[in-house]
Amino acid sequence: MPSRFELANAVRALSMDAVQKANSGHPGAPMGMADIAEVLWNDYLVHNPADPQWPNRDRFVLSNGHGSMLLYSLLHLTGYELGLEELQNFRQLHAKTAGHPEYGYAPGVETTTGPLGQGLANAVGMALAERTLAAQFNRPGHSVVDHHTWCFVGDGCLMEGISHEVASLAGTQKLGKLITFYDDNGISIDGEVEGWFTDDTAKRFEAYGWHVVPNVDGHKPEEIKAAIELAKSHDDKPSLIICKTIIGFGAPNKQGKEECHGAALGEEEVAAARKRLDWPHAPFHVPEEIYRGWDATESGQARQDAWDERFARYAEAFPEEARELQRRLKGELPAALTSEAMVEEAQAKGESVASRKASLACLNELGPQLPELLGGSADLAPSNLTFWKGAQAISAEAPDGNYLHYGVREFGMAAIMNGIALHGGFVPYGATFLIFSEYMRNAVRMAALMKQQAIHVFTHDSIGLGEDGPTHQPIEQLTALRSTPNLATWRPCDAVETAAAWNAALKRRSGPTALIFSRQGLPHQARSKQQLADIQRGGYVLKDSEGTPELILIATGSEIGLAMDAAERLEAQGRAVRVVSMPSTDAFDRQDAAYRQQVLPAEVGNRIAIEAGHRDFWYKYVGLEGRILGMDTFGESAPAGDLFQHFGFTVENLVNEAEQLLDDAED
Amino acid sequence: MPSRFELANAVRALSMDAVQKANSGHPGAPMGMADIAEVLWNDYLVHNPADPQWPNRDRFVLSNGHGSMLLYSLLHLTGYELGLEELQNFRQLHAKTAGHPEYGYAPGVETTTGPLGQGLANAVGMALAERTLAAQFNRPGHSVVDHHTWCFVGDGCLMEGISHEVASLAGTQKLGKLITFYDDNGISIDGEVEGWFTDDTAKRFEAYGWHVVPNVDGHKPEEIKAAIELAKSHDDKPSLIICKTIIGFGAPNKQGKEECHGAALGEEEVAAARKRLDWPHAPFHVPEEIYRGWDATESGQARQDAWDERFARYAEAFPEEARELQRRLKGELPAALTSEAMVEEAQAKGESVASRKASLACLNELGPQLPELLGGSADLAPSNLTFWKGAQAISAEAPDGNYLHYGVREFGMAAIMNGIALHGGFVPYGATFLIFSEYMRNAVRMAALMKQQAIHVFTHDSIGLGEDGPTHQPIEQLTALRSTPNLATWRPCDAVETAAAWNAALKRRSGPTALIFSRQGLPHQARSKQQLADIQRGGYVLKDSEGTPELILIATGSEIGLAMDAAERLEAQGRAVRVVSMPSTDAFDRQDAAYRQQVLPAEVGNRIAIEAGHRDFWYKYVGLEGRILGMDTFGESAPAGDLFQHFGFTVENLVNEAEQLLDDAED
Repeated sequence: MPSRFELANAVRALSMDAVQKANSGHPGAPMGMADIAEVLWNDYLVHNPADPQWPNRDRFVLSNGHGSMLLYSLLHLTGYELGLEELQNFRQLHAKTAGHPEYGYAPGVETTTGPLGQGLANAVGMALAERTLAAQFNRPGHSVVDHHTWCFVGDGCLMEGISHEVASLAGTQKLGKLITFYDDNGISIDGEVEGWFTDDTAKRFEAYGWHVVPNVDGHKPEEIKAAIELAKSHDDKPSLIICKTIIGFGAPNKQGKEECHGAALGEEEVAAARKRLDWPHAPFHVPEEIYRGWDATESGQARQDAWDERFARYAEAFPEEARELQRRLKGELPAALTSEAMVEEAQAKGESVASRKASLACLNELGPQLPELLGGSADLAPSNLTFWKGAQAISAEAPDGNYLHYGVREFGMAAIMNGIALHGGFVPYGATFLIFSEYMRNAVRMAALMKQQAIHVFTHDSIGLGEDGPTHQPIEQLTALRSTPNLATWRPCDAVETAAAWNAALKRRSGPTALIFSRQGLPHQARSKQQLADIQRGGYVLKDSEGTPELILIATGSEIGLAMDAAERLEAQGRAVRVVSMPSTDAFDRQDAAYRQQVLPAEVGNRIAIEAGHRDFWYKYVGLEGRILGMDTFGESAPAGDLFQHFGFTVENLVNEAEQLLDDAED
Repeated sequence: MPSRFELANAVRALSMDAVQKANSGHPGAPMGMADIAEVLWNDYLVHNPADPQWPNRDRFVLSNGHGSMLLYSLLHLTGYELGLEELQNFRQLHAKTAGHPEYGYAPGVETTTGPLGQGLANAVGMALAERTLAAQFNRPGHSVVDHHTWCFVGDGCLMEGISHEVASLAGTQKLGKLITFYDDNGISIDGEVEGWFTDDTAKRFEAYGWHVVPNVDGHKPEEIKAAIELAKSHDDKPSLIICKTIIGFGAPNKQGKEECHGAALGEEEVAAARKRLDWPHAPFHVPEEIYRGWDATESGQARQDAWDERFARYAEAFPEEARELQRRLKGELPAALTSEAMVEEAQAKGESVASRKASLACLNELGPQLPELLGGSADLAPSNLTFWKGAQAISAEAPDGNYLHYGVREFGMAAIMNGIALHGGFVPYGATFLIFSEYMRNAVRMAALMKQQAIHVFTHDSIGLGEDGPTHQPIEQLTALRSTPNLATWRPCDAVETAAAWNAALKRRSGPTALIFSRQGLPHQARSKQQLADIQRGGYVLKDSEGTPELILIATGSEIGLAMDAAERLEAQGRAVRVVSMPSTDAFDRQDAAYRQQVLPAEVGNRIAIEAGHRDFWYKYVGLEGRILGMDTFGESAPAGDLFQHFGFTVENLVNEAEQLLDDAED
């Protein structure tokens, strides 16, 4: 029977060997946290290596994602489909063992981590999802949703602001099944952290309402075990276990120093570490008895089997709930969902309202049909209009709700939403003003990278928000969102396109969607059946000329009304003008060439794009010959009408531009 | 003599009247914090309304910037050039009284606030700047730099993650002259904060090493005064004074509720508040004796006069220091600065190095000449290469350094840099990986909005960073930066352009600059004297064809080498190819039409842009007829060389694209 220390050394050896072979990576954290991981994974973590998708598994998040070899070693040793050759291929093209843990690459990686602090936020989201799902589905005697969420964090995670946002919310929400280990090694990239990080972290987390186990020796399995027991026994608060560790433990000349954080140790030091750790085996060689000590395949399968039985009993007693839970875990929308009919109804109704109000109507329509919707706003519910009539706030006292008051925590919200999406059973949506998408940028990007369905409601989408002024008026934000790979972005022009955007967002399982809504009212647009159907294509002809157009106006959102009015004026002057509504440029870009040519014929070079956002994005559709009525300065504080006037978003100005363009073209 | 309550009611009345007149704004915070502000401004704040630029004034930051009418009322009442007509014009176009306090609009506004949490960060930056400047310039018996920084924060600021980052750093740095008032009114936009914000804030700030004065009644002047005295006496720690207040104090039916936070009270409630507050005066009318009670013009001038004398004595005793301090406060660069010569020297040296290394060489050259440089990195100094040979870490024990170890706090760093820049006396630069510009986006934007010189060093600028993978590889970030109004962005292709970029950044006083540097080595490029001079124009012909080019390759940074190699290959095949290096698109866009036409002749439509970043940005320069070799997916984890190959950044591929384009054009 190998000792715990020997088991932990397998992680250390694999980690330093893989980093050495790649000559790239981070050996310090895996070597420093190996003992903690050994106790957690061998004695507590409930998982089944044969089925990484088992819904009731514990979730494990390595928030200090640069220590990826720790996770890969654990997955390999416990029996996941991650062979030695993958470890030997660490950080190489097409390997499952990417430099940072990438969701969807190696089995058992629960979330992509690396950007510091976000893993902790994901873990908070997972723990919230678990508790909410349990509250919604468990029945007395039937705990079919019941697992822990474990998280490793480093100094970097705890310095990041997002750790404050999510730890604070986790404390308020009393997420008792979230247990976090702080790798308190006193070292970050610039050196010893005492020069820039002197928080009393125990006190800080107590201030958030966490249960803290301080002063644990992270290299003493018995201390770690005792701490975990203590943490598990406090199920009314999230727990933080503060483990004193030595970074790079085992590397005799580099341990405890920044040197071992983010670079291969070097052949010599690797050899010295082997000696120091009494690990005489060749690189990447793990003795059979060590493998046996780690193997979790049997126990894991037994656990899943027991749960399968538990679930079968539940399904017998509560067949409807069981079916519904299975549907939600699979991420299937209800067959009878009326989200498409909703688009047609909106057309029939013909209301002229702000798109944020139209969005609320969508939520009121769809909310009752979609119990998986888990909504929220970063303290802007009355402005974002996301608290629909069936919304119920989630709290420790009422855990079975469907809405989170995230507080003024945009970044935390978006990263928590990622954790909720990754957990399964929910479609999270969250809201803030479009400008504050900047506070959460990287978490939106992470959803796109991880291909997670998270729906972001961004209201107050332009200078049209008026008096709050330039700090609150988005200019370049639409460009940033549209340039994010795998993010769908919609900026609808009326209630009908708003319904279509919600429909698209709900059906898009492979990534996040940004829904961009106005503060101010927007005029309803008439549409034929074909036009109505074409909204989903992202761009379509909203108003056509008789015969070939000599000018195409391309607009989105609140500028469609302007384009329509200008087109009317120009037509009255004998011009043949087409108006293209382009609520989603990414959806339009995905259409086949024939459709795109039909909407934007190459031979029509006279084009004007109109959008109260940064102008440069639109060269993509109007080229160097066209014109753009957009912005390239900040906004100002004034009533919306004055601002549209001030920045030239007027029918007069647009008609002028059009006439100039047409005159130039005729010269 | 009016009572303190009456004085405070002037603020309340002006605030509710202005919001009512605009029918837009936030009366709750001004009415709730009026008593605190009255004590602070009348008894403690050292300022001179006649000279808002007096360098030794106390700094006052309203981090809860939506309460702008509080600040405007204070500025008006104490004697700043901000007349009643401006207050009556609140939130109207071209008024100084913008919806949120905008730096550069009303005199006495020290920073633009509104995006929550950032004001506190600015205040930390100001306090750091004050202490550093004092340590660098004060001499025994000569305290020419000696002022406090005061900050108001609300619940929103304290929920935001950035409050953690900067409060933690302020605690570590022991910024004893920073005194912050927390408007603990228990209300945020979603309602009573107890549902989403239950921090023990006193304990939290104690954990950061702050001195906390808890449980102050924010409506009792004597309690407020005692708290300030206590805070001032603790000069070894920043202080947080926690004031229990009633939001909208005085509005009988709306106070203490969310309703009064962000909307006009309504005529009826305004009338009721007048009654309740016993403020019988007409809207916008302030009795003379109240004005007299607030007037700070005399005391302010006396204080500044006393300081002028103090400074004169200093100048006599330390003439050189005094001249240098004046130079720095004016923001003038040293006359003999060699930043331009450095560009020529780099050309002569001809080194092929990573641009981050070339940047370090610039810092080593310029650092000794520029004591105003206040550098730093968010815990990536060894990677960003920002800790130059003369860098000295700033700490409480060594306050006279020139470098901040910001810790892993990107957003905090950027917002602190804004505070440092606003304070004056410094040119801050800070660094992180380009991808993590996302963590700090909105603070970079705020520097651009406020026209502040802050230099951001963003290294590891593309998939060229290699193994760290897609979480660390920027794609759309360059587009986001380039689309930010008033932000200058440089992505140099070699050591020479790197020197030119630093030169430009140092000379750009009117806004921030983003310097984008590579992790990997970049080949040196040959240049004529003219080409060398043209770098500053942002785009220039690096290699020309004989006669009119039939193809123009436009590239930046690491892709210039690729473009040059491809051009050579194409020339060997008889093609006339021009290569345009475009390190700064915004600088290029500012050139006159003749120059732009010279570099990118309209008649040459065959253009290919090459950049290992998001492709769509480049339509602006190649139009719909050109091609773009860029990215629209995330990266991967692998060695850099493999990635450039994988994503098609090869000479073969580029030559292929060029041939296809030329063949198409000839068809």
